[in-house]
Amino acid sequence: LPESAERTAVPGVATGLAVTGTGGDVLFIEATAMPGEARLHLTGQLGDVMKESAHIALSYLRSHRPDLVEALDRTIHLHVPAGAVPKDGPSAGVTMVTALASLATGVPVRSDVGMTGEVTLNGRVLPIGGVKQKLLAAQRAGLTTVFIPQRNEPDLDDVPAEVLAALDVRPVGDVAEILAHALERQDAVTQAA
Amino acid sequence: LPESAERTAVPGVATGLAVTGTGGDVLFIEATAMPGEARLHLTGQLGDVMKESAHIALSYLRSHRPDLVEALDRTIHLHVPAGAVPKDGPSAGVTMVTALASLATGVPVRSDVGMTGEVTLNGRVLPIGGVKQKLLAAQRAGLTTVFIPQRNEPDLDDVPAEVLAALDVRPVGDVAEILAHALERQDAVTQAA
Amino acid sequence: LPESAERTAVPGVATGLAVTGTGGDVLFIEATAMPGEARLHLTGQLGDVMKESAHIALSYLRSHRPDLVEALDRTIHLHVPAGAVPKDGPSAGVTMVTALASLATGVPVRSDVGMTGEVTLNGRVLPIGGVKQKLLAAQRAGLTTVFIPQRNEPDLDDVPAEVLAALDVRPVGDVAEILAHALERQDAVTQAA
Amino acid sequence: LPESAERTAVPGVATGLAVTGTGGDVLFIEATAMPGEARLHLTGQLGDVMKESAHIALSYLRSHRPDLVEALDRTIHLHVPAGAVPKDGPSAGVTMVTALASLATGVPVRSDVGMTGEVTLNGRVLPIGGVKQKLLAAQRAGLTTVFIPQRNEPDLDDVPAEVLAALDVRPVGDVAEILAHALERQDAVTQAA
Amino acid sequence: LPESAERTAVPGVATGLAVTGTGGDVLFIEATAMPGEARLHLTGQLGDVMKESAHIALSYLRSHRPDLVEALDRTIHLHVPAGAVPKDGPSAGVTMVTALASLATGVPVRSDVGMTGEVTLNGRVLPIGGVKQKLLAAQRAGLTTVFIPQRNEPDLDDVPAEVLAALDVRPVGDVAEILAHALERQDAVTQAA
Amino acid sequence: LPESAERTAVPGVATGLAVTGTGGDVLFIEATAMPGEARLHLTGQLGDVMKESAHIALSYLRSHRPDLVEALDRTIHLHVPAGAVPKDGPSAGVTMVTALASLATGVPVRSDVGMTGEVTLNGRVLPIGGVKQKLLAAQRAGLTTVFIPQRNEPDLDDVPAEVLAALDVRPVGDVAEILAHALERQDAVTQAA
Ligand SMILES: [Ca+2]
Ligand SMILES: [Ca+2]
Ligand SMILES: [Ca+2]
Ligand SMILES: [Ca+2]
Ligand SMILES: [Ca+2]
Ligand SMILES: [Ca+2]
Ligand SMILES: [Ca+2]
Ligand SMILES: [Ca+2]
Ligand SMILES: [Ca+2]
Ligand SMILES: [Ca+2]
Ligand SMILES: [Ca+2]
Ligand SMILES: [Ca+2]
Repeated sequence: LPESAERTAVPGVATGLAVTGTGGDVLFIEATAMPGEARLHLTGQLGDVMKESAHIALSYLRSHRPDLVEALDRTIHLHVPAGAVPKDGPSAGVTMVTALASLATGVPVRSDVGMTGEVTLNGRVLPIGGVKQKLLAAQRAGLTTVFIPQRNEPDLDDVPAEVLAALDVRPVGDVAEILAHALERQDAVTQAA
Repeated sequence: LPESAERTAVPGVATGLAVTGTGGDVLFIEATAMPGEARLHLTGQLGDVMKESAHIALSYLRSHRPDLVEALDRTIHLHVPAGAVPKDGPSAGVTMVTALASLATGVPVRSDVGMTGEVTLNGRVLPIGGVKQKLLAAQRAGLTTVFIPQRNEPDLDDVPAEVLAALDVRPVGDVAEILAHALERQDAVTQAA
Repeated sequence: LPESAERTAVPGVATGLAVTGTGGDVLFIEATAMPGEARLHLTGQLGDVMKESAHIALSYLRSHRPDLVEALDRTIHLHVPAGAVPKDGPSAGVTMVTALASLATGVPVRSDVGMTGEVTLNGRVLPIGGVKQKLLAAQRAGLTTVFIPQRNEPDLDDVPAEVLAALDVRPVGDVAEILAHALERQDAVTQAA
Repeated sequence: LPESAERTAVPGVATGLAVTGTGGDVLFIEATAMPGEARLHLTGQLGDVMKESAHIALSYLRSHRPDLVEALDRTIHLHVPAGAVPKDGPSAGVTMVTALASLATGVPVRSDVGMTGEVTLNGRVLPIGGVKQKLLAAQRAGLTTVFIPQRNEPDLDDVPAEVLAALDVRPVGDVAEILAHALERQDAVTQAA
Repeated sequence: LPESAERTAVPGVATGLAVTGTGGDVLFIEATAMPGEARLHLTGQLGDVMKESAHIALSYLRSHRPDLVEALDRTIHLHVPAGAVPKDGPSAGVTMVTALASLATGVPVRSDVGMTGEVTLNGRVLPIGGVKQKLLAAQRAGLTTVFIPQRNEPDLDDVPAEVLAALDVRPVGDVAEILAHALERQDAVTQAA
Repeated sequence: LPESAERTAVPGVATGLAVTGTGGDVLFIEATAMPGEARLHLTGQLGDVMKESAHIALSYLRSHRPDLVEALDRTIHLHVPAGAVPKDGPSAGVTMVTALASLATGVPVRSDVGMTGEVTLNGRVLPIGGVKQKLLAAQRAGLTTVFIPQRNEPDLDDVPAEVLAALDVRPVGDVAEILAHALERQDAVTQAA
């Protein structure tokens, strides 16, 4: 059983993919909500760009998903362990959207799904770096489905065939496609939105 | 179909033109609104001058367009992808005005229109740099109409004839001229204002 | 027709004079008001001293002009184009008072008037530098009346006779003297205050 | 009688373990509550990572322990003596959770218990460094039970046998296991939650 | 007529004494009040210590002069011209107390009075530097009465006899003694307090 | 009559002991209260550690002395003269508690009492440095009773016998012991708490 099964057992946690100094790694985005005024508390030694990604993720949901606005109108704490490791970059955008949507809907994220991609305010998925290292890490971590940005599809040429065989890699252009799959009981909700 | 068609399909997105290290490029200004107190949230690694431009754009609309004040009296998030690329300078001023006016009116910006120009609190369009590179980028991106500041008209001498032939370049002195054209169904609203 | 005619056509804009690296120049102070809590938003890459000048200008009007308090009890945005040029120093004080008083009264500033001078909380006009360069710039820009601080009167010795002949230079000790002249229909208001 | 008996006599104090320049040491996390708006005041020259740990600890309790939300909805001051010694790192996470839970329940922390471990927003206990030095310090300080992260179990190989004999070392994966033991009368509360 | 007569003609202005690079100088503390929440706005390029002095001066009056609390419960702007000159140090404390008390009572400060001294929260007057240069500057500026801290009395040995003859130098231990004299119609108010 | 008699004549002032570059010195902590929201305003060029000490002192009283909560629920200004001298360190903790308790009860601090010691959120008194220099300074200043931390008792070996003979040195483990003695009419209140 991969670590992601344990970590994503509760709503609000999504599995991302990062490039580190020594290759790729999975990374868990944790979001929780608590009573209090609407604000986003960020921890995990996040850099400027990654903090902005979190705000973009929240604004995307608050402006494009009226069904989730009320659930997100609380104090939300988004944390990215490990707490002492500095992290930065925009590529966790889609993972943050997914973690927050999971929190808001109460639907846990599928534990076999990983994802990477910058997200815009309108949900467009922009290309990121390190596709090869990230897919290798995804396979190592026991993930089976990985969402990547459509514009990163050419990077798949460099990924070993056995990795591509083991993974269901899905290039996407809109983060809504990720939400529809990763939030298990999400289909009905998406159609109603 | 140019990328701008996809990006500007929703209200709140306008196509600007930037000078980069390697020539010119199109840049999309995204604005969304959500419930909450009136404030402007800015992301995209914007420098001081560009952040000020966004506030000037909003203040211009809030003080000169009474018909839009109510629509702008919410939490507005303005983002400029790509999220990890630092950006600065005043020349996105008119694009920011256009994105915010599109958001406030609900009218999408024409997808074939690009623009560049500093804007003042009263809507005057001040000259900017890089006219040649910006027009080349506009043509490459498939745009057909480009607004530039009136005081940049002399810079057109340096632009290749085939670029000028392909583009409808419109020098303007007041940002209201851009709004009247770029917001497709905007004419009636402008006359009523 | 000088540029100042176009720029000062709306209430809230006053024409100042600055010393730049290459001589003197005119500079336009733009102020606009919008609904919202009473606060002063400053843009134009203003330095610490110039930001303080704007607050002094506003406090002068709010504490010495009870007739204007209500009009100034809104969100006020004061901008000094060009947006990318850093600016600093106290000598725009009187221009800021004039722009804000014009905004509050709705009376446009006379387009043929320029001014320079530090202002205190009680409206005293303190001496500034660069009188010669500023008067040369005023003449070049087509201004006809220029207010300078009384204590700068000795500096007029260094100004070419033809510049002094072309300009009506008025040394003043109190900014109220500037307001009485520069705000065209201001006389009655001033007498009633 | 160890110092911890005196320090943990009141609710809101938990005994942690730290690595210092000269080995390991015990450290006391003190939390108090007072009337006022819900906020967390941190003192003790805490670094960025340690401040984030405190916020994670509080958010964990506020989102996972509905029975404690009301008690934590006050101004909480968390201090880590000695006041002049800079401290940082994520390993006091579980101790902070325990101190805050003790404060909220009014149940003092068992004085013979020490603990170390990073905590996530969902209560997972992540591995830390310095297990050997920390256990030596725990024994020196007269503690008898020490909680460490499950993923640090391999580090016990390096700990002298007499230390392991003297201590009841308990590897845990979830901070709730620590709370169940360290808050003496906590068992009933935990079952009811 | 000295400049101080003109500057202190309105309530809220007091004449202080400063040491500059080239000797001593008089300095005017200007305070004005305007509608708005109770806060203290400071300008004049004041350093940390001088800003703290202003807060100490206001707190002294708000905690020791119940008769003035209501008048000080507004937005107060305290400015020290000239605006571009950096200033620091605690020795303007008594001058700030006097300017604020003048503002609150509406009684102008006597134009022939100068003063220097650090003030504590309880109105004690602590010693300062530059007594000789300050008294020379006071005489030059046409002042006739100067308050100095009691503990600076020994410094008068170094002041030229003709300066001491021309000035009425009054060493004081409590700022209330300065207020009693400098605020012309203040006596009755002080007795009633 | 020592200076402390004059300074501590009003409630809210306590006499501390500091180590300076040239030995030890007495230092007065002044606290005043004024109408306004509950907050702590700190002046006297205090460093980070000393500012934290002030917040710890206030939190100790607000969480352990319900009888004082209402009196402390105002804007409190705590100042440490002289205003231009930078100060830091945790050893004024007990003096800050005493000054604030004096302010809240209205009972002046005994003028013959000095004190030094770090304080924790629960009132524990932790050891400090410079015992010898501080006791010498206390004697010089005419103090007769000095409270020091219990864990500093061994340092008394290095203090000259005549100093120890002249002073009543009282090692304490809890700041409540200091309050019971230093606030003259405090005994009854303490017993009732
Ligand atoms: Ca950065
Ligand atoms: Ca596959
Ligand atoms: Ca900048
Ligand atoms: Ca053309
Ligand atoms: Ca500066
Ligand atoms: Ca003339
Ligand atoms: Ca750090
Ligand atoms: Ca054992
Ligand atoms: Ca400083
Ligand atoms: Ca005399
Ligand atoms: Ca520090
Ligand atoms: Ca003795």
